[in-house]
Amino acid sequence: MSSTSTSPTPVAPWPDGAATPLGEEQAALMDQWWRAANYLSVGQIYLKDNPLLREPLQREHIKARLLGHWGTTPGLNFLYAHANRAITDRGLHAMFVTGPGHGGPGLVASTYLEGTYSEIYPNVSEDLHGLKRLFTQFSFPGGIPSHVAPETPGSIHEGGELGYALSHAYGAMFDNPEQIAFTVVGDGEAESGPLATSWHSNKFLNPHTDGVVLPILHLNGYKIANPTVLARIGDEQLGDLMRGYGHEPIFFTAGFDDEDRVSVHQRFAAVLDEALDAIADIKRRAAEAAEAGERIERPAWPMIVFRTPKGWTGPKEIDGKKAEGSWRSHQVPLANARDTDEHLHDLDQWLRSYRPEELFDEDGRIRPEIRGLAPAPELRMSANPSTNGGEVLTALRLPDFRDYAVDVPSPGGSVSEPTRVLGTWLRDVITDNPHNFRIFGPDETASNRLQAVYDVTAKQWNAEYVPDDADDPMAPEGRVMEMLSEHQCEGWLEGYLLTGRHGLFNSYEAFIHIIDSMVNQHAKWLKVTNEIEWRRPIASLNYLLSSHVWRQDHNGFSHQDPGFIDHMVNKKAEIVRVYLPPDANTLLSTFDHCLRSRQYVNVVVAGKQPNPNWLTMDEAVTHCTRGLGIWDWAGTEVEGTDPDVVLACAGDIPTIEVLAAAKILREEVPDLKVRVVNVVDLMRLQDETEHPHGLSQKAFEGIFGEDIPVVFAYHGYPWLIHRLAYRHDRHSRVHVRGYKEEGTTTTPFDMLMRNDTDRFHLVMDVIDRVDELGTRFASLRQRMEDERIRARAYAYAHGEDLPEVSQWQWDDNADLADPSAGTIASPATATTGGDNE
Amino acid sequence: MSSTSTSPTPVAPWPDGAATPLGEEQAALMDQWWRAANYLSVGQIYLKDNPLLREPLQREHIKARLLGHWGTTPGLNFLYAHANRAITDRGLHAMFVTGPGHGGPGLVASTYLEGTYSEIYPNVSEDLHGLKRLFTQFSFPGGIPSHVAPETPGSIHEGGELGYALSHAYGAMFDNPEQIAFTVVGDGEAESGPLATSWHSNKFLNPHTDGVVLPILHLNGYKIANPTVLARIGDEQLGDLMRGYGHEPIFFTAGFDDEDRVSVHQRFAAVLDEALDAIADIKRRAAEAAEAGERIERPAWPMIVFRTPKGWTGPKEIDGKKAEGSWRSHQVPLANARDTDEHLHDLDQWLRSYRPEELFDEDGRIRPEIRGLAPAPELRMSANPSTNGGEVLTALRLPDFRDYAVDVPSPGGSVSEPTRVLGTWLRDVITDNPHNFRIFGPDETASNRLQAVYDVTAKQWNAEYVPDDADDPMAPEGRVMEMLSEHQCEGWLEGYLLTGRHGLFNSYEAFIHIIDSMVNQHAKWLKVTNEIEWRRPIASLNYLLSSHVWRQDHNGFSHQDPGFIDHMVNKKAEIVRVYLPPDANTLLSTFDHCLRSRQYVNVVVAGKQPNPNWLTMDEAVTHCTRGLGIWDWAGTEVEGTDPDVVLACAGDIPTIEVLAAAKILREEVPDLKVRVVNVVDLMRLQDETEHPHGLSQKAFEGIFGEDIPVVFAYHGYPWLIHRLAYRHDRHSRVHVRGYKEEGTTTTPFDMLMRNDTDRFHLVMDVIDRVDELGTRFASLRQRMEDERIRARAYAYAHGEDLPEVSQWQWDDNADLADPSAGTIASPATATTGGDNE
Repeated sequence: MSSTSTSPTPVAPWPDGAATPLGEEQAALMDQWWRAANYLSVGQIYLKDNPLLREPLQREHIKARLLGHWGTTPGLNFLYAHANRAITDRGLHAMFVTGPGHGGPGLVASTYLEGTYSEIYPNVSEDLHGLKRLFTQFSFPGGIPSHVAPETPGSIHEGGELGYALSHAYGAMFDNPEQIAFTVVGDGEAESGPLATSWHSNKFLNPHTDGVVLPILHLNGYKIANPTVLARIGDEQLGDLMRGYGHEPIFFTAGFDDEDRVSVHQRFAAVLDEALDAIADIKRRAAEAAEAGERIERPAWPMIVFRTPKGWTGPKEIDGKKAEGSWRSHQVPLANARDTDEHLHDLDQWLRSYRPEELFDEDGRIRPEIRGLAPAPELRMSANPSTNGGEVLTALRLPDFRDYAVDVPSPGGSVSEPTRVLGTWLRDVITDNPHNFRIFGPDETASNRLQAVYDVTAKQWNAEYVPDDADDPMAPEGRVMEMLSEHQCEGWLEGYLLTGRHGLFNSYEAFIHIIDSMVNQHAKWLKVTNEIEWRRPIASLNYLLSSHVWRQDHNGFSHQDPGFIDHMVNKKAEIVRVYLPPDANTLLSTFDHCLRSRQYVNVVVAGKQPNPNWLTMDEAVTHCTRGLGIWDWAGTEVEGTDPDVVLACAGDIPTIEVLAAAKILREEVPDLKVRVVNVVDLMRLQDETEHPHGLSQKAFEGIFGEDIPVVFAYHGYPWLIHRLAYRHDRHSRVHVRGYKEEGTTTTPFDMLMRNDTDRFHLVMDVIDRVDELGTRFASLRQRMEDERIRARAYAYAHGEDLPEVSQWQWDDNADLADPSAGTIASPATATTGGDNE
Repeated sequence: MSSTSTSPTPVAPWPDGAATPLGEEQAALMDQWWRAANYLSVGQIYLKDNPLLREPLQREHIKARLLGHWGTTPGLNFLYAHANRAITDRGLHAMFVTGPGHGGPGLVASTYLEGTYSEIYPNVSEDLHGLKRLFTQFSFPGGIPSHVAPETPGSIHEGGELGYALSHAYGAMFDNPEQIAFTVVGDGEAESGPLATSWHSNKFLNPHTDGVVLPILHLNGYKIANPTVLARIGDEQLGDLMRGYGHEPIFFTAGFDDEDRVSVHQRFAAVLDEALDAIADIKRRAAEAAEAGERIERPAWPMIVFRTPKGWTGPKEIDGKKAEGSWRSHQVPLANARDTDEHLHDLDQWLRSYRPEELFDEDGRIRPEIRGLAPAPELRMSANPSTNGGEVLTALRLPDFRDYAVDVPSPGGSVSEPTRVLGTWLRDVITDNPHNFRIFGPDETASNRLQAVYDVTAKQWNAEYVPDDADDPMAPEGRVMEMLSEHQCEGWLEGYLLTGRHGLFNSYEAFIHIIDSMVNQHAKWLKVTNEIEWRRPIASLNYLLSSHVWRQDHNGFSHQDPGFIDHMVNKKAEIVRVYLPPDANTLLSTFDHCLRSRQYVNVVVAGKQPNPNWLTMDEAVTHCTRGLGIWDWAGTEVEGTDPDVVLACAGDIPTIEVLAAAKILREEVPDLKVRVVNVVDLMRLQDETEHPHGLSQKAFEGIFGEDIPVVFAYHGYPWLIHRLAYRHDRHSRVHVRGYKEEGTTTTPFDMLMRNDTDRFHLVMDVIDRVDELGTRFASLRQRMEDERIRARAYAYAHGEDLPEVSQWQWDDNADLADPSAGTIASPATATTGGDNE
């Protein structure tokens, strides 16, 4: 392992601003800020007019529909204000990750108070007009959602589906050694699985070369309609849990008695200072160790347990029932403010309890002494360029992928493991981009045969080491992130991308469904940011799904499900790309494209097993650029006449089967004009009106003919091909073979047979579809059926595939014995050994 | 809350068998069992012949392809043997949940040694023939998968995707007060999110009325290619973590030195006795407290940290590299056993190290003194009837759902919140089935308006209580299980169903994608068990997806994704059912059907907001039984002639829009013959050859006509309708409107407009599709477009929908002011308040 290429990021010293105790006067001022933020939050939920209550509150000032979530908001506002104090005191570069993202009004209010909001949205100005607009736009048609969202300045974290605050924060902090993420974890989301494991992220962080995550567990005690688990296990067990996760917890409780607010602020400032002092100490020790060429042991990073009432400062009681400190504060506590005098009165009292007249000037602007608490413009969390990732994005320095081409003397004339070849290119991507590119995977990077990357980097690991680790590529800093949690990998990568860096996620195809809902949310983020002018494009989210469903040799039915592609195709066309490169050179070309692209989710499915190489690099580049194309050399067309049938394929295994079928047809029915089409870019099958990559009807017919039968062998569920080609396939002439749910322990070729996607069945399909052959070639058809029976019987008897199948070659004269490329050409034989889950 | 209906299960006293120390002789015998199990495990991975090595080992005895996972297997075998001793000593009723399910060979071996395997699979007999078959079938075509699987006796837990061992085990133990689940958690899977949060299940377990989960963290240190996190944080942090999770950890380490095996067994037996004594003590205290009408505080349940080498007892070194105790033992350590003399020799040595000649008699049968260690037949974990859930399943006593019907004086003549109505029936289902029916939900049961259930039961909660909880339906035993983790809810419910009970999962539609991959695995389990004779049918997995995508009033884009239906439809037809009841009575009828059904995954999407009632109960029953049908009263057909157009709908909101469109057409184009079709059972749209519920072409044409245009308004992504109706829709005449990905904060009706699924657009579609109208009704078409513009403008200005839309009624004379039913008839107005996430 060369260490030069992954040398630590040059790191500036961690700021060690003085931690002076919070004086009474400043505490009082901070309380004003907090009141202002709370006031603006309540205003967003309820008001559409009379923003500073300069007239008596009337029903017509209340929105028709009261939406949003109050419960978590005051706590967020409190923490944001205190983070600001620390930023100013210490000169921190910080971001704020809002786990309880339903508290959107709070983040909007805080960033408005900092001035950032009005800078970005001039219509939401710092005056009465702007205040009114601020209030009306919230959870309103044409306005903004009630959650923290892409529209919120400083956010990298959508507050919709919960559970990813810590993994996003850690992802954001990798290779950001000068930054800190104040990360609020809701006690509701803390119950989710992804959040529960994401605390362990601290074993994957290098204290010197990465930034800092300060988790703040916002223990407000209630979810929608239940208490939270972590609020009800006692401080002792909670403390144990946090220590078990590798943190040193600092407990803070406020809001449950009538303690003076100044004192509350002073106490919390001291708690935050304690945490930040501990962090500064860790950073200093790490820097000193690095200076001396050493490393510190994994520290117990501080974290804060912040126990305050749900709906803090809100109405104590509503309709005779406890509101503050109860789940009844979760959403809109005074739901009938427009309908009943009592609620209207309570709302008025509540709003006036913040004394807006002391906070805003005549014009509706926040008073300057309060505004003065905001950090210097460039240190505002809401203006941290990392949170608008595209702003700090630098393109990768990509080595020319053509230099990594495998030699293809003739189609099928050599054999490679495609992902292993890709690994050699990725190795050099890492070398050339030591600080802004990482590979994520749930313990499968080696299994997926990207091992070459370990020539130049390591798996980042900062837990214990044992002597046996000496020959394992592990180090406290490295470009590969592996934890057996797809959620964690996805969350880390999203955080890394959202802050302007690059990466890929390699995983098993069947289990990538684990993050279906996470990628949903990321795809929506991308879609929305496309429409937000100030959000700059970020690098695409790239999936490499190797260990795909057709090659689950070590595993059973549970490892089979190609539906992630279907899941993604339901997302907006402008976001999603799906590639099925059939061999090594096309995989190289595809991934080069993916790493250059922006704002997409790229799904690449590619095998890791030895596979024939079909295209030279020049051909691969042309083919991938086209996205699909006719493979002349494989067909038996006659120039100037229509083919009789099109054999189409998408995916590495279907490509082999289609070619094997084409070869049988060439030998058995030499006068049949067969066209072979391979599809790399699945979106090309759509109509041009449906997807930016789609084909015109004319172009589609140019490739698939006008009314001839098409037999299509596809990697995934067959329906997707019908769906994609629907507008083009006017006569339902496309016949698709693909993956069907079949529980089976089997050899790979037998799996194809069970799914009717094998060469013999494809030949039968052709016979059945090209009318005249039905009778003319009844004997060939029966022979194919016999071959299938024989192949299955052999597999059942011998536990491996028929030699004719496993040793099949397109070119009978090719010499595939090149040991460096592997010796096995067929999909139907695996190399055994420790490479599969 | 009535307590009679949920009175604790009658509970037999927990067995308090003596915990005598393990004698030397018995320890030696247990070691023989362990050696036998390990021998049989290695044999399964490598051998196809010469099962007891009575001839010299030859290459031809080795399988052609070596598959499976050795690493975790010996540890599982060790634990299984010790569990057996405890079962026998104490008379426990136990099951074994294998988290590291890749260790399939171990469970097969252990259950073979107990005799169960041969009882179930007579061909795998207890003799030389059976041993050979046992070995060959493993990971072999036509045989069994390499994981713990439905084929494995005693398993309720597929060893494919990892992370669900604890949630399955807890689900199995709810209402099983006399049982214990020895639950092995792999240290790999322990890194997954779902597993990390599932430790908290102990806050939802009643020590008296539920069974016991004894977690055993199998800390063998390595995953596929990495160390595990929990093995590298030190015993102190690991102990803290377990205590934080609410457990009392007991640490055990063995296998890293040359300690005598007898001593190892004696030490572990003492550890297990310590844990089981603690459990017996808790159970005794809980029983005594119950006797006195009291409850004990949540105890710190014991758990065991079992630190042993990966590939324990396997080859120490292979090719000069450490194997035992390393990730290199994960899968098949001697991958070249058939190809190299060295590996063949090593394998021979390894197999013989277990001294099979001492373990099996002349005929190949395990020696009786070893077999004698197996528990009494009825106590064998592999024969526990609960693990073959259908065997202990009793049908629910279902109150007649007709009695809960809402009154429907005319179509649309009354209004109900469908899920609230369903709640009244579920309340009585709970009353009548106090011990075998539970409702699971991630904090949304009240939000989804099933509150009536709280009249008779509580949310089961065994963490701390505070005085404020008095008016919250929480109790240490209850039928509703709520934790903010979809994974946990799904895992619990699966475990509950797999052990022969009934339940439902209610959730937000968009976030149910969180468990996409879990339901995949469950659906596969169902599919495979359909083909395994001895597996009895279990109750269906029922989803109630309320808070669906069209009504995310409080939330934003992140809460919108109807793709779970698409995900499920990719599963095998015989497993999946999808229902979209359009109103309260159809929902009742649908759910009655779901709770009676077996071996399905039933997805029911139904709204919780006030919704017009369309069908009387009699009509609803007929309609649901048909699955789809013509709504005569809504159309303008003339008997004996073909309609001009079919307006079809599936889903509650699309139904309203189709009826509103039909009403406009009736008024504006009275001579147009419109047929209105409503679809409840989505699978009915398929062809009869594709799904058991599918229609024949003739029946399809009977409903949708032969060649007239169909305008179909659908709840989800429109493509699914095309896909389902593909074989029927020969002329591409079905035009579908459905959900499209659109980022928006909006009113409900505006969301429909953005998706072009609103009434005005549907009318335009009809005009466009019924040829002659294109010109004849250009002015109506333009008026519809104007209405849409006006409706949107109103929503943007007022933050609510146009009164004509929000107060729309089908029957203008209906009096919808019944306060008990809610006063709002349109989808376009929500009741605000604390009912939405």
